[in-house]
Amino acid sequence: MEIIGEKINGTRKRVAQAIAERDADFVRDLARRQTEAGAAWLDVNAGTPPQQEPDDLVWLVETVQAAVDTPLCIDSANPQALAAAITAVDRTPMINSISGEPARLESILPLVAEHGCSVIALAMERKTIPDNSEERMAIVHKVMAATRAAGVPDQRVRIDPLAMTIGSNVQSGPTFLATLRAVRAAYPEARTTAGLSNISYGLPARSFINRAFLTLALEAGLDSAILDPLDRELRAALLAAQLVLGRDRHCLTYTRAYRAGLFDEPGTPAD
Amino acid sequence: MEIIGEKINGTRKRVAQAIAERDADFVRDLARRQTEAGAAWLDVNAGTPPQQEPDDLVWLVETVQAAVDTPLCIDSANPQALAAAITAVDRTPMINSISGEPARLESILPLVAEHGCSVIALAMERKTIPDNSEERMAIVHKVMAATRAAGVPDQRVRIDPLAMTIGSNVQSGPTFLATLRAVRAAYPEARTTAGLSNISYGLPARSFINRAFLTLALEAGLDSAILDPLDRELRAALLAAQLVLGRDRHCLTYTRAYRAGLFDEPGTPAD
Repeated sequence: MEIIGEKINGTRKRVAQAIAERDADFVRDLARRQTEAGAAWLDVNAGTPPQQEPDDLVWLVETVQAAVDTPLCIDSANPQALAAAITAVDRTPMINSISGEPARLESILPLVAEHGCSVIALAMERKTIPDNSEERMAIVHKVMAATRAAGVPDQRVRIDPLAMTIGSNVQSGPTFLATLRAVRAAYPEARTTAGLSNISYGLPARSFINRAFLTLALEAGLDSAILDPLDRELRAALLAAQLVLGRDRHCLTYTRAYRAGLFDEPGTPAD
Repeated sequence: MEIIGEKINGTRKRVAQAIAERDADFVRDLARRQTEAGAAWLDVNAGTPPQQEPDDLVWLVETVQAAVDTPLCIDSANPQALAAAITAVDRTPMINSISGEPARLESILPLVAEHGCSVIALAMERKTIPDNSEERMAIVHKVMAATRAAGVPDQRVRIDPLAMTIGSNVQSGPTFLATLRAVRAAYPEARTTAGLSNISYGLPARSFINRAFLTLALEAGLDSAILDPLDRELRAALLAAQLVLGRDRHCLTYTRAYRAGLFDEPGTPAD
C-alpha cells in the first residue's frame, strides 16, 4: 500500500505559518521526514485564499522538490492553483481531487489528461455525500465515464470512497468498506485511496479508530491512503495488517521495519 | 464479542507456582481483574501432569468461583480432569476443547451433552492441522456431525478455525479468515472462537500483529476470543474495530470505555 504523506497542509496552523513566512527549512524538514518514514507521495496543500493560492502552491512545490525526489500530490480545488503548480513540478504529480461535480470535472480533468497526471476521484457531488454505497457508486460511475471520455486510463484514477466521521453516522465504516469493495469489483484497473483520519473526527482516542479503519480498509482493497507517516503506531498497524493478510513474504517487511526501529515493541501488560 | 480471559493458565510460570502453593489470593486476583476488564468467561487450565490435574483443576475452579460469578471455560485434554472439574462448577461451563480426533470426541462429548455445556471445537485432527481452509472445513463438518449426533445444539459449539503463527506460514492469516467465513456460512447457529495470540508466536512486536488479527477476525465473523483482557491496547483495538464495523450504536461503548479509563489516549506524534 502506498502512503500519501499528509503533513504539508496549510490548514494546519504551523504549516500555514511556514507558508506565510516562506520558512523553507520547516517545509523541507516535513518533506524529508515523511519520505524517510515511507511516504510514496507527498500531499501539498497551501490552504490559502484563491488569489494567493497559485503563488503559495508553487512555492510549496519548489521547496519540497529541492529537498526530496518523492512525487507530489497537489491538493487544491482551485484550477488556477493546480495549473500553476503542475507547471512547476519535475515529476508527474497526482492531482487531489476531482468529484462528480461538473464544474470541477470540466476545469480539472483537462489538466489531468494533458499532463498525464494521476488523479484522486471523490465519491461525492458538489457538497452532497450520499450515506450509502449504491449512491456513492452512481457518482463513481459518472466520474469514471468522464475520466475515460477525457482519455485518462483507469490505472491513473484513485477512487476515494470517502471516510466520514463515525461520530455523526455509525454506519460510516460499513458504507466506506462496501463502496470500496464495489469499486474494486467494478473498476479492477483503478486504484483506491482515502483520507484516513476523517473516520475518527470528533471522537476520543482517534488513533485506535484510525488503525482499525486502516486494517479493515486494507482487507477490502485500499491500495493507498492519505495519512501521517510519522505516526509510528499507525505504520506498525499497517505493516501488521499486511502481515496478517498474507501480503508480507517471509515476514521480512514487518521484521525489518521493526529491527530498523520504525516502530517499537509495545509494553507488555503486567500480570 | 465475548472475551474469554486467558490468564489463569498453569503453563504460565507464575500461575504454575500459585497452583503448586495453593496461593488462592493470586488466582482470585487474576479472576477479579479479568472480570473487571470485561471477560465474559474465564479460562482455567491447570497444566499439570495427568494424575495431578483433576485435583488441581478442581482447586482452580473452586478458587475462582469463590471470587467471581464469571462462568468458566475448563481447559484440558484430560477427560478425568474435565469430569472432576464439571462436578465442581456452579454455573454451566464451556469445555476447551474437542477436535476431530475420535478419542477426544468419544471421551469428552458425552460430558458436554450430559452437563449441557458449551464446547470449543478445534478445526484439527490428532496432531494434524491442515494448512488450507478446505481441509479444515472437512474436519469441522466431521466434528459438527458428532456434536449433532450427541444432541449438542449448534449454538453451544464454538468452532475455532485455528490461528497458527505467521512466522512458520505467511498464509496463516488468510487461511484462518477463509475458514472462519466458511464456518459462518455453513453453521450460522454455531459460535466461533480463537486463541488469538498464537498468530504472532515467534515474531517481534507481537501486540500489533494480535490487534490487526483481532480486527480482521471480527469483520470475518469471530464472536469470541481467548485473549488477555488486561492488555489495554488490545481492548482498545477491539472496541475501535467494533466501532468501525458499525456495531457500536451511538459510539457509546467506545466513548464510555474511554471515559472510564479502560484505555488511554495514545501519544500524538510530534510535528
